[in-house]
Amino acid sequence: MSTEWVLHCATTLAQLDASATASTAQLAQYFDLPAPYLAKQLQALVRAGVFAASTGPRGGFRLARPTSDITLLQIVEAVDGTTSPYECREIRQRGRGALPPEECQHACILAEKMADAHEAWRRSLAGVTLADILADLPHWAPSRTRSRLT
Amino acid sequence: MSTEWVLHCATTLAQLDASATASTAQLAQYFDLPAPYLAKQLQALVRAGVFAASTGPRGGFRLARPTSDITLLQIVEAVDGTTSPYECREIRQRGRGALPPEECQHACILAEKMADAHEAWRRSLAGVTLADILADLPHWAPSRTRSRLT
Repeated sequence: MSTEWVLHCATTLAQLDASATASTAQLAQYFDLPAPYLAKQLQALVRAGVFAASTGPRGGFRLARPTSDITLLQIVEAVDGTTSPYECREIRQRGRGALPPEECQHACILAEKMADAHEAWRRSLAGVTLADILADLPHWAPSRTRSRLT
Repeated sequence: MSTEWVLHCATTLAQLDASATASTAQLAQYFDLPAPYLAKQLQALVRAGVFAASTGPRGGFRLARPTSDITLLQIVEAVDGTTSPYECREIRQRGRGALPPEECQHACILAEKMADAHEAWRRSLAGVTLADILADLPHWAPSRTRSRLT
């Protein structure tokens, strides 16, 4: 759920003027999201080095890097983590069929294939930057976004 | 969690003699898994046409097709479903920045890129069959599996 939030917030920040920022309250109102929970996600993006935060009366968030240097993978992994959703609990070492430890020094071939698939997913998202997303928006989007955000 | 179970159970059935079957109890003991919960997963594989079930005193599960015709994707999606884990709730149509419906007739570019990544994950798993997994097991595995299962 919050994955969608942060992807849209990053795309929103990408449409601002170079020195402009957006606050948690502005982003929450823009998408009708619960501000306290959104704030946690935005902080995670700051910790990941994707967003930069400034404090003070005109403080808020902006992108920490040019849009061509921020990938969807970096945004997604900032809030969802880098771990594959596949959980390997080494059941090959349990029960009547348990393999001895010396046969389990390499990863199970099934875990390897699931890891390969996760890497394919990561490569796909690493190949898309915020600049690519901006290039796909209609020409009127950035000015509309800026006027509705403030 | 159950993804690991069914991948290992399918690999186990793939090592049996052509007409042999394995029961829920045998598979549960082989991997030290809770039989009632495992039974639900095995039934899901039957419904998906990956496993075939026979009843009676010597009943149990076997693969419904040759190992070269069963992919890891078919096994995983039988229990986890085919839906991408990315949830798009159309927040682009909410809040102060809400886009009008006529601007949302196409999928959001962010949802499209997340769907592309999910397809890359699916393609990776669709490219691996149980025959590929068997070819990677040590030569002694099938006879050991058969003797420990029964």
